[in-house]
Amino acid sequence: MTAPSLVEKLVMHTDSRICLVVLDGLGDIRAASNKYRTPLEAAKTPNLDALARQAAMGRMLPVDFGVTPGSGPAHLGLFGYDPREVEIGRGVLEASGMDMIMEKGDVAARANFCTMKGDTIVDRRAGRPPTERTIEMCRLLEKSIPTIEDVKVIIKPGLGHRFVVLLRGPGLVEGVTDTDPHHEGEPIAQSKPERPEAAKTARIVNAFWRKALDVLKGKEPTNGLLMRGISSRPNIADLKERFRLDAAAIATYPMYRGLASLVGMTLLDTGKTPSEEFETYLANYDKYHYFFIHIKGTDEAGEDGSFERKVSVIEQFDAALPVLLRKQPAALAVTGDHSTPCPMKLHSWHPVPLLLVGPNCGADLKPRFTEAECNSGSLGIFESRHLMALLLANAGKLDKFGA
Amino acid sequence: MTAPSLVEKLVMHTDSRICLVVLDGLGDIRAASNKYRTPLEAAKTPNLDALARQAAMGRMLPVDFGVTPGSGPAHLGLFGYDPREVEIGRGVLEASGMDMIMEKGDVAARANFCTMKGDTIVDRRAGRPPTERTIEMCRLLEKSIPTIEDVKVIIKPGLGHRFVVLLRGPGLVEGVTDTDPHHEGEPIAQSKPERPEAAKTARIVNAFWRKALDVLKGKEPTNGLLMRGISSRPNIADLKERFRLDAAAIATYPMYRGLASLVGMTLLDTGKTPSEEFETYLANYDKYHYFFIHIKGTDEAGEDGSFERKVSVIEQFDAALPVLLRKQPAALAVTGDHSTPCPMKLHSWHPVPLLLVGPNCGADLKPRFTEAECNSGSLGIFESRHLMALLLANAGKLDKFGA
Repeated sequence: MTAPSLVEKLVMHTDSRICLVVLDGLGDIRAASNKYRTPLEAAKTPNLDALARQAAMGRMLPVDFGVTPGSGPAHLGLFGYDPREVEIGRGVLEASGMDMIMEKGDVAARANFCTMKGDTIVDRRAGRPPTERTIEMCRLLEKSIPTIEDVKVIIKPGLGHRFVVLLRGPGLVEGVTDTDPHHEGEPIAQSKPERPEAAKTARIVNAFWRKALDVLKGKEPTNGLLMRGISSRPNIADLKERFRLDAAAIATYPMYRGLASLVGMTLLDTGKTPSEEFETYLANYDKYHYFFIHIKGTDEAGEDGSFERKVSVIEQFDAALPVLLRKQPAALAVTGDHSTPCPMKLHSWHPVPLLLVGPNCGADLKPRFTEAECNSGSLGIFESRHLMALLLANAGKLDKFGA
Repeated sequence: MTAPSLVEKLVMHTDSRICLVVLDGLGDIRAASNKYRTPLEAAKTPNLDALARQAAMGRMLPVDFGVTPGSGPAHLGLFGYDPREVEIGRGVLEASGMDMIMEKGDVAARANFCTMKGDTIVDRRAGRPPTERTIEMCRLLEKSIPTIEDVKVIIKPGLGHRFVVLLRGPGLVEGVTDTDPHHEGEPIAQSKPERPEAAKTARIVNAFWRKALDVLKGKEPTNGLLMRGISSRPNIADLKERFRLDAAAIATYPMYRGLASLVGMTLLDTGKTPSEEFETYLANYDKYHYFFIHIKGTDEAGEDGSFERKVSVIEQFDAALPVLLRKQPAALAVTGDHSTPCPMKLHSWHPVPLLLVGPNCGADLKPRFTEAECNSGSLGIFESRHLMALLLANAGKLDKFGA
């Protein structure tokens, strides 16, 4: 636990609402291939334009200059965490990505089936079995090994040969080595504790795979399993503890729901379109003080390099915006978690455009919400981990500092 | 004492002059209530406009994103201190605000008269006596208790029931508890040391209020006193030590004079209007290398929500500007300590506009000095604690770093 930041010391609980809308991968770049227009510039967005005139605008660096973030760090920044300081283990990310809610003290591993010959791994991916086979094997494992000592074993199948093993019980911590030797022709590795406190975790992990080998005996090609990235939920204070916020997440993709749950948000059931997500926001407006609404389509279009589709997702968002605005929070931000420029077909380091609106935001009077207009907005260019303080301030939730 | 910063290591003494003009609470926001114009935008400022064309412009965060500062932290930032690291106790602020110059080692307490019945506090504010009564009682106390052990007692009356007790003598440090129990129906509390070094301070504080009770016996309703926020001058290196600057302050309000004295500025006698303050600057130009000129009216207008008055103070400042410019320093900054937007009637977190002019500032060629023009200036948006380095650099007082 680090000492509370100045903002955490100043934060007050009030009845005002904050809403953060994240269009995943929203930011883009002008290039010859898109005729030097970004999707935000090309899209017809009458509702967003009207909002822009009332808003304060700026751009945010997801992590730092030149750093291209994955979805984990990018969202942690938006939620007010320093993404350089909070590390999310691969097992936890995988579990979060599969909608498994991790409790404090849980340990999760990325797992996959492999093929053994005697004690030797002969195919690390078990010949890439169909997902149905993995589902069947996972059911068998969970039924056969419900617990080890006082630890509950929870197994969830993923795609192909992949699955997640989640261990829940007292005394489990991360800091153990993989059982995957990362080479074929070797036996499964013993998990070893990297520090004394992790001895129990290593013992449970090793007991699990030994029992699993018995269960999987004769089930070629899925007669073995490997575990990697064995990790525990990061020990971070949640949004309630840090900012006195009862927070809710409206997201359709498992990974973003998982990330939201890691910082203490309640996950709301929702339809998949922006309009349906906004209806979920309206229906829950009275119950929470902070809403995170995630829209995935912009990122997928960017990764596919589909300029037209990214424009179309933005226009679909714009058309749904009046639904959201039926309940205007004290502070509303529209932004991206990172840029996914169509010309690159990848996440990138480019700062994301930010629009922030509220009664005291100060209107920049910009005609549109685009990357270029944001460059000269009153919010400047800053790291996204500071967005939370701006939202809290605009919502009247920060006390004055000093006399 | 922290290690010297890079800027402190590079600083050189030269004969050039720096002038920092602070229009208190200058920054504002566009809102429906002001027809989307800030006072700087609405004011007629021909002299400032002419200066703007030659200037480098930008915006400054007084403390950090979203943080609304009081005057203390806001000015410490402008003077080159990190306001998150320098804490000014309530007693020191109160003493500074009443124009009491605190020396190193002094300890000050916010004090007020109360009404006692036997050993019990029956009215924590002594029925809010008129100021005249407090003046009379303070004179009586100071005459009756000039010293305790080797400690001099200095007392200054404030408004209503309030006054300040300043203790001057060897071995005094902050870190003692209040004598105010913060509830009626209780006796006066013993001040307790929170660390061993503060034992003498607690002893003197307790001896003072016991003697004072004897002096005030029979003087109902002002027959008792309470002390809070017992604190010492912050242990910070002054502007001379850090930046080799002989600094002078031209300010009319006690609090700003107090803050200036805390960082080692000489307080100059001055008339109250901007024009008179600028005449004071001209008269002292040869004697100091750094001038802090404080203009209060903008903040008061903002706190009253009086758009017209804020415009008028800015226009009055603009009309006086030619007086200031009779002696052009190597680096001149015009800015605010924080924003006090008229629509909010409060200090706020919004970045303040900054104009910096000097022979080598680089002209942004902006037509006017407004918040919006500053958004796209060459100085960007940065924390005000960095302003000192920019002023020193423009004044040719910073050596090259490295070869």
